[in-house]
Amino acid sequence: MLSSRHLAALETLLGPSGLVLDPAARAAYETPARYAKGVAAAIVRPATTAEVSAVIGYCVREGLVFVPQGANTGLAEGSTPDASGQHLVLSLERLVDTLDIDTADRTATVSAGVRLSALNAALEPHGLFLPIDLGADPSLGGMAATNTGGARFLRYGDMRRHVLGLEVVLPDAAGTVLTLSHGLRKDNAAIALRQLFVGGCGVFGVITKVTVEVHHRPRQTAAALLVPRDIDAVLPLLCAFEAQAGTMLTAFEGMSRAAMERAIAHVPSLPNPFANGIPDYAVLVELTRAWSPREGEASLDETLQEIAGQLLEHDDAHLADALFGPTTRMWTLRHALSEGLRASGPVLGLDLSFRRRDLARFRTEAVAMLATDFPDYVLCDFGHVADGGTHFNLVGPTDPDRRAALREAVLTLAIDGYAASFSGEHGLGRAVQDAYDRFTPRAVQDYSAAVAAVFGRGSASIRLAPATSSTPSCQDFR
Amino acid sequence: MLSSRHLAALETLLGPSGLVLDPAARAAYETPARYAKGVAAAIVRPATTAEVSAVIGYCVREGLVFVPQGANTGLAEGSTPDASGQHLVLSLERLVDTLDIDTADRTATVSAGVRLSALNAALEPHGLFLPIDLGADPSLGGMAATNTGGARFLRYGDMRRHVLGLEVVLPDAAGTVLTLSHGLRKDNAAIALRQLFVGGCGVFGVITKVTVEVHHRPRQTAAALLVPRDIDAVLPLLCAFEAQAGTMLTAFEGMSRAAMERAIAHVPSLPNPFANGIPDYAVLVELTRAWSPREGEASLDETLQEIAGQLLEHDDAHLADALFGPTTRMWTLRHALSEGLRASGPVLGLDLSFRRRDLARFRTEAVAMLATDFPDYVLCDFGHVADGGTHFNLVGPTDPDRRAALREAVLTLAIDGYAASFSGEHGLGRAVQDAYDRFTPRAVQDYSAAVAAVFGRGSASIRLAPATSSTPSCQDFR
Repeated sequence: MLSSRHLAALETLLGPSGLVLDPAARAAYETPARYAKGVAAAIVRPATTAEVSAVIGYCVREGLVFVPQGANTGLAEGSTPDASGQHLVLSLERLVDTLDIDTADRTATVSAGVRLSALNAALEPHGLFLPIDLGADPSLGGMAATNTGGARFLRYGDMRRHVLGLEVVLPDAAGTVLTLSHGLRKDNAAIALRQLFVGGCGVFGVITKVTVEVHHRPRQTAAALLVPRDIDAVLPLLCAFEAQAGTMLTAFEGMSRAAMERAIAHVPSLPNPFANGIPDYAVLVELTRAWSPREGEASLDETLQEIAGQLLEHDDAHLADALFGPTTRMWTLRHALSEGLRASGPVLGLDLSFRRRDLARFRTEAVAMLATDFPDYVLCDFGHVADGGTHFNLVGPTDPDRRAALREAVLTLAIDGYAASFSGEHGLGRAVQDAYDRFTPRAVQDYSAAVAAVFGRGSASIRLAPATSSTPSCQDFR
Repeated sequence: MLSSRHLAALETLLGPSGLVLDPAARAAYETPARYAKGVAAAIVRPATTAEVSAVIGYCVREGLVFVPQGANTGLAEGSTPDASGQHLVLSLERLVDTLDIDTADRTATVSAGVRLSALNAALEPHGLFLPIDLGADPSLGGMAATNTGGARFLRYGDMRRHVLGLEVVLPDAAGTVLTLSHGLRKDNAAIALRQLFVGGCGVFGVITKVTVEVHHRPRQTAAALLVPRDIDAVLPLLCAFEAQAGTMLTAFEGMSRAAMERAIAHVPSLPNPFANGIPDYAVLVELTRAWSPREGEASLDETLQEIAGQLLEHDDAHLADALFGPTTRMWTLRHALSEGLRASGPVLGLDLSFRRRDLARFRTEAVAMLATDFPDYVLCDFGHVADGGTHFNLVGPTDPDRRAALREAVLTLAIDGYAASFSGEHGLGRAVQDAYDRFTPRAVQDYSAAVAAVFGRGSASIRLAPATSSTPSCQDFR
């Protein structure tokens, strides 16, 4: 329980601008991007690694629970307090002092609070970027802590692939600061402790600084909307594009008719690109390359049209239609899907991931199950099918019991039936606590908790999703 | 100490073909690819995961020390016994029952003992391959355990980037078998325990099965030998190729004159490609792409010549010369370097890794230091400069004290001066035990040992490079 003595001590550590107590000002820190608002005991905002260390050490010694928060753009309730009013929010938004770019090394070292947009703005004049493409503007620390993926994972991979070094503060009584690698691309001189903190969602400690590999921006982009014959044709089309376009293939995003209809209905400026009506399913395919067309060389648009043309003429008829046009217009449709859904009604959103060979079979089975057992919900799925990822969204009634039954039915089919993941790219947080307790193998939970305890030595009280507690949270430190 | 009772029990577990006792037959398991032969108490060769589990459980309960061994191609003395005659070798060479390829998923699941060459032979008819390019033919389990890199890391990354799932046997009294992910590309539903076993060099357990992502083979390849103006021009040339060629750039391998001279002198069939004499330093640059040239499109050879031509004419004059020719001939030179060195005299080999911006500065400083303090050694370095990696080889006298002083001087300059790694891609083993004890930060060693102990629960006796023991080994289980 936070007392006035604690507040005075925290203010001494951080100064007056390091604390947010005013209820109106606190709302932004208490309200997640999705799900319900929580109530924080207070917001603490350290501005340096030393201050993060001091705050964490103090909290551990005093038994205060804190929730680390980056840009608070996460979708798993991992960065906001619960309703108890007992948790501190440890905001890292003031941790922005470092943004160092090394163009020859093709790396950037940034404080945890620096936003993706700020990093990319700084990289742009050098022709570089961090190619993690998301529908939000998260902080680099949060991106590393949740191991974000995104729409160009197919080509560039996730944050884990880009993180070359971390500075972290451990949840122990000393607020121990650890530097885990110095930005080397190859380093097998120790075991990969750093990897625990990537995607660790704050369980092992708080990330305060990140070194990432960055890439050259492509100089040519081309995109098309593909209409597969049916859902089973999506994977063969992907394989054909992978074989034909190789590393030029940078996105292959599936979109269901229900999702596209809602986006087009909701965004007035968004034209319907499909002259023959919105198809049951479409795929946004994107090619990019590093260079501009050389003399006599086909433009990337022509290359894309050639590949699609061959597929249209092919006997197996996986491809029913293909639409070409400005790349930005295609992405505008893709990026409008989430917003269109939310505008159309209450959404139950699941962030599932499959072996990609299982995706179509699961979807077909799920559609049949939904038609029988949950006809009052509309499936509006879309996602990163090339990685086996799908944002499996269902729009329909808000009755809590019914939604819980629906969620249970989908998760059981996906995980028990196909060894899927209930968190493809959104990380861990209260929103998936029940799934973690239920579906993550018991042995993995036990070893994870034991490993987490190693980094909390001195506090002996980090909890990784304990199944027995009534209000646990993956990222809470107790 | 291994007794006849132990041998009888192991034979009961594995059958007669599961044990190798004959001294002559044991030599292959006791002799590392480099460094001195050890002496094993016995060789045990389980053929299934269940047998691995049974053997490990038995060893832990009986206090028998074992060293896991894959194809025994490692260069860090990580897979062979020491001279004590007390250690069992746990060979995984019979673990070859699984080799499943899923072309649509672009994944392969293989038993730990399957060789890279066998996997690639099975993938070849599908136009796929695992693009980890090495000078040896390791087993997949060993590749994952050491997180191998190789000559095409620049484009494809290391084993960590490819491992989508692992089956491991923990060093506890039960020989616990854990499955860590089922081949999903995206999975943040638990913390990344799997990552501890990749590059863990057997400290956390023994890998028995691996699921890897595989890639489409390129359809076009072009290569050139670049002669940079001097060592400081190498990095600007790399940056120019990265900007111009993007993901077509698949290798950028540095080679010193001393290394090239020895290869050309040693391999009679290897012609000297340099008409004007072997330069001080050369770079093998390789481009590949997924498709064959389309109509009107330049061949990849022409593209490479065009990029090199522009660099030759550029005012900054980083590129002094460029030689074109058959790709295989270029790689023959590159792959002959190690052999040429060893044929020319005793080699002190260091597998260093730097931030790539530091590589040339370090080399210049090291050359000056060697000229002053170690003029009797010749630097014959080569390596993966695009990743900051260098095989920093020194040919010269074998006097142990002098070699120890040389090693110490180079490591101190590299690690204290440039935060380098003493094991870029060769993993951990007895050969770098002293460097681990000395240079890996104390806190990282302590946390690593504590995390390792979690997986040995029940044995409470895994040792990760303990600084106090007289004959420790990173991968020994005690």
